[in-house]
Amino acid sequence: MPLLVVGSVALDSIETPTETRENVLGGSAVYFSYAASYFTSVRLVGVVGDDWPEAHTELLRSRDIDTAGLKALPGTKTFRWRGKYFDDMNTRETLDVQLNAMGRFDPVLPDEFRRSKFLFLANGSTDLQLKVLDQCPGASLRVADTMDLWIRSQPEQLSELLRRIDGLVLNDSEARLLTGDDNLVRAGHKVRERGPKFVVIKKGEHGAMFFSRHETYVLPAYPTARVVDPTGAGDSFAGGMMGYLAEQDNFDPRTLKEAMAYGILVASFTVEDFSLDRLRKIERADLEHRMEEYRRMLSF
Amino acid sequence: MPLLVVGSVALDSIETPTETRENVLGGSAVYFSYAASYFTSVRLVGVVGDDWPEAHTELLRSRDIDTAGLKALPGTKTFRWRGKYFDDMNTRETLDVQLNAMGRFDPVLPDEFRRSKFLFLANGSTDLQLKVLDQCPGASLRVADTMDLWIRSQPEQLSELLRRIDGLVLNDSEARLLTGDDNLVRAGHKVRERGPKFVVIKKGEHGAMFFSRHETYVLPAYPTARVVDPTGAGDSFAGGMMGYLAEQDNFDPRTLKEAMAYGILVASFTVEDFSLDRLRKIERADLEHRMEEYRRMLSF
Repeated sequence: MPLLVVGSVALDSIETPTETRENVLGGSAVYFSYAASYFTSVRLVGVVGDDWPEAHTELLRSRDIDTAGLKALPGTKTFRWRGKYFDDMNTRETLDVQLNAMGRFDPVLPDEFRRSKFLFLANGSTDLQLKVLDQCPGASLRVADTMDLWIRSQPEQLSELLRRIDGLVLNDSEARLLTGDDNLVRAGHKVRERGPKFVVIKKGEHGAMFFSRHETYVLPAYPTARVVDPTGAGDSFAGGMMGYLAEQDNFDPRTLKEAMAYGILVASFTVEDFSLDRLRKIERADLEHRMEEYRRMLSF
Repeated sequence: MPLLVVGSVALDSIETPTETRENVLGGSAVYFSYAASYFTSVRLVGVVGDDWPEAHTELLRSRDIDTAGLKALPGTKTFRWRGKYFDDMNTRETLDVQLNAMGRFDPVLPDEFRRSKFLFLANGSTDLQLKVLDQCPGASLRVADTMDLWIRSQPEQLSELLRRIDGLVLNDSEARLLTGDDNLVRAGHKVRERGPKFVVIKKGEHGAMFFSRHETYVLPAYPTARVVDPTGAGDSFAGGMMGYLAEQDNFDPRTLKEAMAYGILVASFTVEDFSLDRLRKIERADLEHRMEEYRRMLSF
């Protein structure tokens, strides 16, 4: 099944303890789309500026990602993010954000996109996420990400969003912020009780937790000795997870757990180089190989 | 097989965000022994002062823990530790340490104890750990814990220790400190390359990682909504792990992974109340029940 994603498309500048890269391809919808493209066709909705290199669009198209919803706004620049990672590579600081075109993003979905059954609302304001939901009344699986910024600034819209989606993906610090509870098991269920059928808490290098009415579980990250740039790990995780669900056209508990594992594995490749550089070198078979190792790791 | 442990025996005062307890039973060798007692008989070596409540010794004896090596030093008090946990319950601050009897601890093992095949060197100075090793030349599995204090203050002794033990257990920040490497996968193997056949890195609420020449894996913590007091979680983990190995009288890779899982599960009970209060209420069957859930959690 085709998978719709709406989110940011960016040019990122990344500083790690050992290396810096300027204006590389990034953004939540980009990482998500590329990660999902191992499993299913993707429909991307986003906005860029005049400075957007056409080669980036071609790269996405080469992966069966439909870019009909990727609009260039004349007279604007593409969204820019600059971040710096600390030595542990699990914490970072945002040095600069230039919203540019993203500040004027008002997603109007192509008709065909509105009929998507699988929908992911990646990083973007909650207002904007609600506007997308309005345009996709027939979606069978609606999952959203959120961020500290929106938890603080749009609490009422977020409450509405939680009532209207099937799943929420957020990171550990955001789950604590949203619920005021430092225990992640309790926090996960507290978020779930506000609406979504399931909640996923991303823990970076420590893996991800899943919460539904009848299930609570945690899957560890795949241990990699080569963490070059963690940017996009969370979006890659979501892309792998949603991509697998769309491929299976199913989201029963068993498929959801497999999807979590695929998300974790795609993310484990993403962090092994800057931008999409590592993902560009792998194929589905590499994911399956790592999945075999991962299953073996968790068997005893 | 009987399992020998040498380490601290303490009276702890614990401050959590919601509750405080004064002078409760604690210490690395105590948590370790009690956790191991679900699996095997234990031989405890430690030191206490005049203020040691005899009831604590009786409690340990009731669990088939041989306290012939627990010496009371007249004119001293028992080792005291006071710590405070922050809201996330995963970080803590030591408020006060009174070494007392522990400062004069010079372990001389009973003859029978010296013939133990399974040996764990819990928290204590590296000098002291080496003295114990000298007394147990015939041990078939020698595993040690270490701490930031000894990594900083006894680096040469620690190098010798690493060459003489089969396994080292330490937490994530200590592994980073010992190797200067923030990536835990690399850090684990760097420690292993200094001597031990295997290394275990404890990650608190995020589980534990295992490193041998041919294996690298991570097992998540069992997710519990009820974290009352994390004190002793790491020692309980080691006790569950070593206890299971001693019970099986085996430490092949498969048994080691099962042992890691048992360690994680004993620790998941320990944190659910202060001191040994939660462990005192559970039996082996409760561990097996949680093990079934844990295996199911990691299967997909």
